[in-house]
Amino acid sequence: MDQTTTLPLHPKGGDGDMPREDAAAQQPPTAAGGEAPLSKNALKKLAKDKAKAEKAAQRAAQEQAAAQQAAASDTAKHLYGLRPSTEATVETINFTQLTEEQYEKEVTVVARVDSVRLQSAKLVFCGLRQQGKKLQTLISATEPISRQMVKWTGGININSVVQVTGVVKKPEIPIASASAGLTEFELHIRKVYMVAQAAQMLPMQVKDAERPPPESHEEGQVDSKGEPIVTLKTRLDNRVLDLQTETSQAITWISSGVAQLFTEFMLKSGARWIFTSKFTGSATEGGSEVFELGYFKRKAYLAQSPQIGKQMCIAGDMMNVFEIGPVFRAEDSNTHRHLTEFTGLDFERSFQSHYHEVLDFAEELLVFILSELKTRFKDEIAVVQRSYPKAGDFKLPKDGKALRLKYMDGVALLKEAGVDVSEQEKFENDFTTAMEKQLGRIIREKYDTDFYVLDKFPLAVRPFYTKPCPDDPTLSNSYDFFMRGEEIMSGAQRINEAHELEAAMRVKGVDPNGPGFDDYVSAFRQACPPHAGGGLGLNRIVMFFLGLPDIRLATLFPRDPQRLRP
Amino acid sequence: MDQTTTLPLHPKGGDGDMPREDAAAQQPPTAAGGEAPLSKNALKKLAKDKAKAEKAAQRAAQEQAAAQQAAASDTAKHLYGLRPSTEATVETINFTQLTEEQYEKEVTVVARVDSVRLQSAKLVFCGLRQQGKKLQTLISATEPISRQMVKWTGGININSVVQVTGVVKKPEIPIASASAGLTEFELHIRKVYMVAQAAQMLPMQVKDAERPPPESHEEGQVDSKGEPIVTLKTRLDNRVLDLQTETSQAITWISSGVAQLFTEFMLKSGARWIFTSKFTGSATEGGSEVFELGYFKRKAYLAQSPQIGKQMCIAGDMMNVFEIGPVFRAEDSNTHRHLTEFTGLDFERSFQSHYHEVLDFAEELLVFILSELKTRFKDEIAVVQRSYPKAGDFKLPKDGKALRLKYMDGVALLKEAGVDVSEQEKFENDFTTAMEKQLGRIIREKYDTDFYVLDKFPLAVRPFYTKPCPDDPTLSNSYDFFMRGEEIMSGAQRINEAHELEAAMRVKGVDPNGPGFDDYVSAFRQACPPHAGGGLGLNRIVMFFLGLPDIRLATLFPRDPQRLRP
Repeated sequence: MDQTTTLPLHPKGGDGDMPREDAAAQQPPTAAGGEAPLSKNALKKLAKDKAKAEKAAQRAAQEQAAAQQAAASDTAKHLYGLRPSTEATVETINFTQLTEEQYEKEVTVVARVDSVRLQSAKLVFCGLRQQGKKLQTLISATEPISRQMVKWTGGININSVVQVTGVVKKPEIPIASASAGLTEFELHIRKVYMVAQAAQMLPMQVKDAERPPPESHEEGQVDSKGEPIVTLKTRLDNRVLDLQTETSQAITWISSGVAQLFTEFMLKSGARWIFTSKFTGSATEGGSEVFELGYFKRKAYLAQSPQIGKQMCIAGDMMNVFEIGPVFRAEDSNTHRHLTEFTGLDFERSFQSHYHEVLDFAEELLVFILSELKTRFKDEIAVVQRSYPKAGDFKLPKDGKALRLKYMDGVALLKEAGVDVSEQEKFENDFTTAMEKQLGRIIREKYDTDFYVLDKFPLAVRPFYTKPCPDDPTLSNSYDFFMRGEEIMSGAQRINEAHELEAAMRVKGVDPNGPGFDDYVSAFRQACPPHAGGGLGLNRIVMFFLGLPDIRLATLFPRDPQRLRP
Repeated sequence: MDQTTTLPLHPKGGDGDMPREDAAAQQPPTAAGGEAPLSKNALKKLAKDKAKAEKAAQRAAQEQAAAQQAAASDTAKHLYGLRPSTEATVETINFTQLTEEQYEKEVTVVARVDSVRLQSAKLVFCGLRQQGKKLQTLISATEPISRQMVKWTGGININSVVQVTGVVKKPEIPIASASAGLTEFELHIRKVYMVAQAAQMLPMQVKDAERPPPESHEEGQVDSKGEPIVTLKTRLDNRVLDLQTETSQAITWISSGVAQLFTEFMLKSGARWIFTSKFTGSATEGGSEVFELGYFKRKAYLAQSPQIGKQMCIAGDMMNVFEIGPVFRAEDSNTHRHLTEFTGLDFERSFQSHYHEVLDFAEELLVFILSELKTRFKDEIAVVQRSYPKAGDFKLPKDGKALRLKYMDGVALLKEAGVDVSEQEKFENDFTTAMEKQLGRIIREKYDTDFYVLDKFPLAVRPFYTKPCPDDPTLSNSYDFFMRGEEIMSGAQRINEAHELEAAMRVKGVDPNGPGFDDYVSAFRQACPPHAGGGLGLNRIVMFFLGLPDIRLATLFPRDPQRLRP
């Protein structure tokens, strides 16, 4: 698909580059990479595009003669082409810095060419894109701009990075295709230079990736408006292009924001930032499957969470710690919310008298993150909602305090709604995903919140290190956090006495003297204060906060059993 | 070694627990776990300890009779023993919150027992330790404190976590064994409860780990003062105890600080926090060896840096990104500064006209981190310097700007000093570690700084993605950062044009169409602005800033070819 472009970088004039109505239109609607046969609509569009291209070629031939004449005396030569090193030192602004005060003034921007439309031989409209935001520019062949310069601009490959100097104008009517905040600006080009040139054929158009991926469509189909459909697979295969959409830009900002807000809150609480090892000598936690690797003639495993490490830090007197890092799960789960690698936000704290001190803390943490996201990333949220409006605004409790229910309250709510929860009542099984989602809907209706906590889970459904409830040994001092009915955090008070831990390990079939666990159990023999903590999934927070249909959309370079690239 | 303790948790009185001069003294000097034969000094100490213990046992026997009598009528029963749940809700303070205003007032603390000294049957001195800080307490058998309570306190296993309520007193002379800031305080115990009990025998004493590990000593030896020597290996084998020392507490705070300052600076610069995948489909970068793992019937590799991922983010229009995460190196290097896993602080930025924009930024970043460490972690630095005074204060350039030299300037300085740099002059090899260290000493002497930058490295010694210098193709637009003569960061402008990158890959024997690289090269075919960046090693920054002799001391749970635990 990729081809080195043929666009001449030095303006020679009259080279007869084929002008075009719309550079994107030159590409067949199967550009997204599918090999499925074309639909009727697609064929229609192809025929239309072909007709356009032929028309354009005719025009080009007519213009060529005139252009060749003018070439020798192109007085605008220095205003376009490959960027001269002197031009690289010119001060530039970002699109977001455009204000009304710049009307009639000259500014310079570096951005991608998003679209090109040849209005005539003398006028070209060129849409620019910078971090997903679109700005309208135009170039018109009036002194000192030459026709050759206009033509060269019209021939720039879509997605190339250019440096444009132009006069800021207020358009007569707001530009519909421009991004929010940029509709009242139009740049009239004075200079245009190539910074980095894109290949003529791209595997996918960024504008096609702006539309949300359909839930069930074959590659190569077109939608009801005749636009090519780009599936999630194609987007992820071409993730670098997909990241350039305004939606992806907003999502990655919000991901960054979640990590920032988590760190801010933890540091303010006096916590220490820790970095535990991802290599362990044993298949830790005895739970879900782990990745095994060769380690200097031995075997090592990738930590499926920082659980062991962060608890050892508490035993090491650190009192209040947090970690941000990759978490590895070798589960062959192929769902909308499972990955083999995700970003874990982990915390662990010792407490004075009751694990609810830590649960209160964790609830405040989440309320802080979610409410600050709404304030600090208002614009980004609005951008994402344009593409994914279905889930609606994320509802936080009105009083600024998390809603906390007991696991058994959740069971009761489901039972009330007619769900068969006999296994859950008998503590034989945790909720199914379907039950969790239904409970989310019931709670939203009843309490008007998308964020809530369930406390006191049955001991049988929790990992071996979970502290049993002192009042009822079939329950445990453990909690899950939910967003829109899906789990984003699991946490608990941990057993902090060696003999109790060893007994609990044996019950779950884990050898307390096995490699990796001996050091862990030793830490408690050497005395460790009572503590509790939790592990959040950053990608899940982003996904459910924004109501995205798939966790891969909330992950830079997602990894699942099928996907190991890019 | 570990034994479940025999200390009764409920005060029964007169149980005849053996009182002791010093609980630690009960343990043989080989407690650190070595099996080497004992030296003369150690035997002497052992004999002395034995004599002490015998004497104590005699005293105990005498006391037992009296204690038994008093047992039935122990009026202080409720003031000690296992912490009642009502006592757990009492408000506690940290040692650092102690002020002169609290003199003669009652406070409650939760801390570890660091030492116990039985002065008489009526008086016990008990040193407490909290996050490495030591506070003196005492318990005296005057109403309402009973002799049984004093005895119970004297029998607490070292390292147990206790809750102590006592009256704050100003000691007549400052307590020499207390930590800085705590020498003017003494707690007179009113209540003492067990929170978490340590085993009687610990594999290592925390106080022995407070002394820096000797450079060459066998386990089980004693030092010139007759104190047992604990080697680095023993400390790392028992890392949880080792983390409890005041020095380790300070080092882990400084590690946390480096990550915090890096994040602060990056976010302030408008950077986005990214999380790239650690699983790659290829042995990336073609450089040092990578870890291979099974991935659902395929093979995957652990990323040896986020290089590919962060460059793809720049190609994805993110402009300014950073990542904090584990970096994996399968190198069989067994040195003081190599690990198989360390914490990478990575950044990458697009620039307008020259890669020095990014180099300036990186220099400001490092100057910010290092100078803020000096301010915000002054106390912690002082604590570490008590144990590791050799390297001295870390010197920063006086004018607050990084010293930047060219690689060739470094070669010239070494040549001037009589070093054979013929291979370096011919660009055949990079500096050796010895050369780097010597250059560090020369620069410290000449420019009075421990932090400096070398720019313009020979192209031949850099990775394939490094941008050649436009003026001299044998050089490159790349730089290394040094602290005390050792490299802490490597960075460069990257090649951002696909055809140039492909050619550079072939020169280094890397297949541009190989798995993992095809997506990378595609990103540049789709156009990517000029950019540069760098990767810092957090552990190295901490190590060289503090002048620690080994990177393992600056790593929570270090991993090297030999070590995979704890």
